[in-house]
Amino acid sequence: MRTFSIAIHGGAGTITRSLMSSEKEKLYREALTYALNQGEEILRKNGTALDAVTAAVVALENNPLFNAGKGAVFTNTGKHEMDAAIMRGDTLEAGAVAGISAVKNPILLAKEIMQFSGHVFLAGNQAEDFARSRGLAFETPEYFHDEFRFGQWMSVKDEEGYQLDHTDEKKFGTVGAVAKDAFGNLAAATSTGGMTNKRWGRIGDSPVIGAGTYANNESCAISCTGHGEFFIRAVVAYDIHCLMVYKGLSLQQACELVVNDKLVKMGGEGGLIAVDHLGNIALPFNSEGMYRGFATPEESIIEIYK
Amino acid sequence: MRTFSIAIHGGAGTITRSLMSSEKEKLYREALTYALNQGEEILRKNGTALDAVTAAVVALENNPLFNAGKGAVFTNTGKHEMDAAIMRGDTLEAGAVAGISAVKNPILLAKEIMQFSGHVFLAGNQAEDFARSRGLAFETPEYFHDEFRFGQWMSVKDEEGYQLDHTDEKKFGTVGAVAKDAFGNLAAATSTGGMTNKRWGRIGDSPVIGAGTYANNESCAISCTGHGEFFIRAVVAYDIHCLMVYKGLSLQQACELVVNDKLVKMGGEGGLIAVDHLGNIALPFNSEGMYRGFATPEESIIEIYK
Repeated sequence: MRTFSIAIHGGAGTITRSLMSSEKEKLYREALTYALNQGEEILRKNGTALDAVTAAVVALENNPLFNAGKGAVFTNTGKHEMDAAIMRGDTLEAGAVAGISAVKNPILLAKEIMQFSGHVFLAGNQAEDFARSRGLAFETPEYFHDEFRFGQWMSVKDEEGYQLDHTDEKKFGTVGAVAKDAFGNLAAATSTGGMTNKRWGRIGDSPVIGAGTYANNESCAISCTGHGEFFIRAVVAYDIHCLMVYKGLSLQQACELVVNDKLVKMGGEGGLIAVDHLGNIALPFNSEGMYRGFATPEESIIEIYK
Repeated sequence: MRTFSIAIHGGAGTITRSLMSSEKEKLYREALTYALNQGEEILRKNGTALDAVTAAVVALENNPLFNAGKGAVFTNTGKHEMDAAIMRGDTLEAGAVAGISAVKNPILLAKEIMQFSGHVFLAGNQAEDFARSRGLAFETPEYFHDEFRFGQWMSVKDEEGYQLDHTDEKKFGTVGAVAKDAFGNLAAATSTGGMTNKRWGRIGDSPVIGAGTYANNESCAISCTGHGEFFIRAVVAYDIHCLMVYKGLSLQQACELVVNDKLVKMGGEGGLIAVDHLGNIALPFNSEGMYRGFATPEESIIEIYK
């Protein structure tokens, strides 16, 4: 068994070498490395998986390259509506939030919800009242405004439909982290700005416990990124747990079955990151690429393409 | 295999003979019978499970005895915030909505979301914009106002905490229906007003696909009622599906394990209704009572106590 394992993602989609400049790739690699390091350092010092996934996701939220926190995509009314969730595998406690606009780090709000609200899932302006009562940092629309995201929105805002976070390519902008710590505890965290030009208060899989986020010391910790509607209908994260616990599949087998067979048959594009209770890591995706990385005591790897 | 099966619930909790007057019991039995008949008639005429569960839940939403639609409990600001979800077992399509205040029948909005939004999960005022675009019926706060629910709220509104739908007793007010039709298709529907005096935009398990609501022709259709936070963390509905499909448990075995063992160990009070693809019915609960009923071609039963 590994002392610790951590994996992160920064979204999946049509991410190919031909669409990526070397400057842009460098920026993504640096950002992913930084976020991974934030979590890894905590685990190396025998910190908890919960703190490690939180630190990694905060770093990804703070970087406008990723569709979460600063750099979140625009809704059809030119706002930001962010979702996040966190879960710990030892107690099965969970916290989730949907449709918030002004909390600097949605993942920190999800954690406060888990620890101090007496609830699991809060939404909208009222969830921000809770955030205020807990003293969390708020930011102005200017903080969340990113020219690149704004341009994405401007190019599609008069269209009827929504858009997955994309430019020329199709990308599922979400960030996440999963970890196993030295105490054998697992944790998962996911945060997203959702779909560009989304409307009607649409909620994806990220804050849905069992769909986009799940952790259980019996099996694994999972954070997903993809076309959220399919991930909700397939209850993706909990499905992997059940395949391991009820059917005896390995983490790798369960992930392959769900991501590259079941989801593909449904038409659900995306991927996920997973660690199991032994510290094994799986990073499956059925799209062309996924911003991802993982670290163990022995190695630390960042990857983007297939 | 039975030609059809349908089950409904109107909430679980501390519902005992000693706390119930015979007049009140009569009203509940009549209301449950009426709702069950609405669904049953559709199935007898070879209608779909989807239409049957919708009709049954609409009937329960329209009756102020139950905490859903008319008669929904009050939030801490004296409003109504309703949640609902629906899922069909043949296509695994699903629709869910959270935090709506003015749509007459939240379950009809969940169904429209499933069929026409391109999404699964919508929330808040913006979800009501979608409802308006679909021509759904809206109602005023006066329509949703119920003196009994208002009294419940007045008695606790200055307390810090929320309250599960209760009077002297502890009740988990939610309504739901599950059905199997003559075509072998399953469907599940759930609708709720949530917790009295709830705040912070709290969302329970009802609209969370996999937690409070799930349907899959491979296994079963489930609608839950109980302390929602535990049902979310335990991914209750999808857990029953997985226990059947991956572990080979019968519907009855899976329901017993989840409701009377796993949930009890977590401290999660409540129950659920379930039908499987053969038309078997299970109505397990770990609370003192659950408003419930079921119908098959042979019989039609309403029950309240253990």
